[in-house]
Amino acid sequence: FVSELQMDNAGIKRGIVIKDDWPGYSLDLFTYPEHYHEDIESVYIPHGVIMNRIERLASHIMDDFGNNNIMVLCVLKGGYKFCSDLVEFIKVLGRNSGKYLETRVEFIRLKSYLNDQSTEDLHIIGSRDLSFLRGKSVLIVEAIVDTGKTMKALLKHVETFEPKMVKVAGPESGATGAPHGDLLKS
Amino acid sequence: FVSELQMDNAGIKRGIVIKDDWPGYSLDLFTYPEHYHEDIESVYIPHGVIMNRIERLASHIMDDFGNNNIMVLCVLKGGYKFCSDLVEFIKVLGRNSGKYLETRVEFIRLKSYLNDQSTEDLHIIGSRDLSFLRGKSVLIVEAIVDTGKTMKALLKHVETFEPKMVKVAGPESGATGAPHGDLLKS
Amino acid sequence: FVSELQMDNAGIKRGIVIKDDWPGYSLDLFTYPEHYHEDIESVYIPHGVIMNRIERLASHIMDDFGNNNIMVLCVLKGGYKFCSDLVEFIKVLGRNSGKYLETRVEFIRLKSYLNDQSTEDLHIIGSRDLSFLRGKSVLIVEAIVDTGKTMKALLKHVETFEPKMVKVAGPESGATGAPHGDLLKS
Amino acid sequence: FVSELQMDNAGIKRGIVIKDDWPGYSLDLFTYPEHYHEDIESVYIPHGVIMNRIERLASHIMDDFGNNNIMVLCVLKGGYKFCSDLVEFIKVLGRNSGKYLETRVEFIRLKSYLNDQSTEDLHIIGSRDLSFLRGKSVLIVEAIVDTGKTMKALLKHVETFEPKMVKVAGPESGATGAPHGDLLKS
Repeated sequence: FVSELQMDNAGIKRGIVIKDDWPGYSLDLFTYPEHYHEDIESVYIPHGVIMNRIERLASHIMDDFGNNNIMVLCVLKGGYKFCSDLVEFIKVLGRNSGKYLETRVEFIRLKSYLNDQSTEDLHIIGSRDLSFLRGKSVLIVEAIVDTGKTMKALLKHVETFEPKMVKVAGPESGATGAPHGDLLKS
Repeated sequence: FVSELQMDNAGIKRGIVIKDDWPGYSLDLFTYPEHYHEDIESVYIPHGVIMNRIERLASHIMDDFGNNNIMVLCVLKGGYKFCSDLVEFIKVLGRNSGKYLETRVEFIRLKSYLNDQSTEDLHIIGSRDLSFLRGKSVLIVEAIVDTGKTMKALLKHVETFEPKMVKVAGPESGATGAPHGDLLKS
Repeated sequence: FVSELQMDNAGIKRGIVIKDDWPGYSLDLFTYPEHYHEDIESVYIPHGVIMNRIERLASHIMDDFGNNNIMVLCVLKGGYKFCSDLVEFIKVLGRNSGKYLETRVEFIRLKSYLNDQSTEDLHIIGSRDLSFLRGKSVLIVEAIVDTGKTMKALLKHVETFEPKMVKVAGPESGATGAPHGDLLKS
Repeated sequence: FVSELQMDNAGIKRGIVIKDDWPGYSLDLFTYPEHYHEDIESVYIPHGVIMNRIERLASHIMDDFGNNNIMVLCVLKGGYKFCSDLVEFIKVLGRNSGKYLETRVEFIRLKSYLNDQSTEDLHIIGSRDLSFLRGKSVLIVEAIVDTGKTMKALLKHVETFEPKMVKVAGPESGATGAPHGDLLKS
């Protein structure tokens, strides 16, 4: 589900918490393709809730990034729809608030694999060279649902290019509840 | 919250059921005006869920009304936003499906009061004459949160004008869970 | 088409100007119900342009109304969809900008007719008593396509209730280009 | 601007035609970031028109692809927003029409350059191996504004993987009016 994946200053993680015993919304309440009904019983995060969360995220991002233009690093394939909607809302808010932040979107694709020390290695498809991030205010948008290791590896890699600041936004695996840090450099 | 307020043929009421012990979504997850935070603790039905439900309702309405054009009776003031979004979606689906149903929207405003027999009477502001409903397929869109008596009274009044069929759609009071019937005449 | 229907201080009317020789957009470019194709040749203001204009209008209204809450007077039947979309956008901008303006919507319905002096009289259906406007910042939202006389009559009537300020927003008849004043009282 | 970039069977190109002498919409009519006003004088295709065109395109695509699931090939960077909105609308129409087409989105990035014979060569970043397209119904979504050579080169390359059919959708350069063919194999 949607979360900012952020530990803010007070250490409070902002995101939707789904209790184990919540049955979710009945699939019948919404419009889904018929074949979904065979495989899916209930809906935990309706699309509209994601859209509402994107509005909230866009607001937070505007506050967090201050007057710095935003270099968005969109992690394919999962992140592209979320990224598209989020950037759109950042633009709407920006042009209506007199505090317009330029957004530039770059795309990367990740593969993680185990190296010969049995620890995880990150492979960035296309290019490992992210030197365009240097000195920039970076927003990573991803939809990685895993243990959080891939995001940690990506953050570590991104850090080596010395961005001004890095924040992460995206739908989150509620099941794992993996800690996702943000790196705030200023 | 959003419900079709319908007893369908099988007597099953389709709508969102909120369990008494569900705490709702935290207000922090969404964007709300600051003064809301003083008065409201949690959100039971985010706006996006209403929008998703409206899509579903529009689909059902297209099925239910068949090839009959729709005379929408929008009950002010509460129903106007819901009505506007619902009619919009009915139009989008219609023009993209080759099964376009004309929608005509008429507005009424209700006041209910106790008469001298201490039973509820319905007052329709503007005009009690709804004879334009005769022979029409009527969709009443309202946002009445009460015991259901007002809707019953309205339905009874509408019936006297001999519409072809009447259906009701709208946000619903989950607390009362009042039975709302639909009158299906064919 | 969409215009603010406003003479601003500099006397400049802001709105879309359609030149007489512009053929409009071909109907084939958009999705319309099939029966439209018999009656309509081209589209002058696509729906999306109206939505874009509503965003712009909402921005202007936020600026114009300052910190005053907005009493919206929605003129039925034509104005309700436009009103619904406009109020929604005012809310989105308000809650994301820290400058939230409460909006309260009231509905009126107008009929104009010739009186025995052959001048136009205005009939407000439901009630002529608009005393709830006293001291309020009023936004009239309408979709009247006529000579502008009805709007003038409404403005005159509204003035008698001594609102703080009155502004008008709505789709406009480009053909008539009738002058619509706004009354700015402060 | 938005066009289907298609020669249909009758050889008619469907798309918005902008006449040379049309001045466009005034920038003042819409909400744009302030710095745009220094560089841009008028708007030829407002965002809302693109959204309306996307609805129309989605309808056409549903018709064109019949019961074949859609393999969307999104050409980065330009095509991602258009692709996101288009796929969303295809999903909305699909789930509401009982004719749901699965969409799978894959991303490629192109660079074209002159080879030593001074003709254009196409470089697909990431992988030239598009064998996942074999036997599939492919929709290429791009926002290439050039002479059309890049798209021709991509289509030729895509053809070598023997897809079932290929169609192209995207915003188009009206200035060039470059011919864009679609390859229809069935």
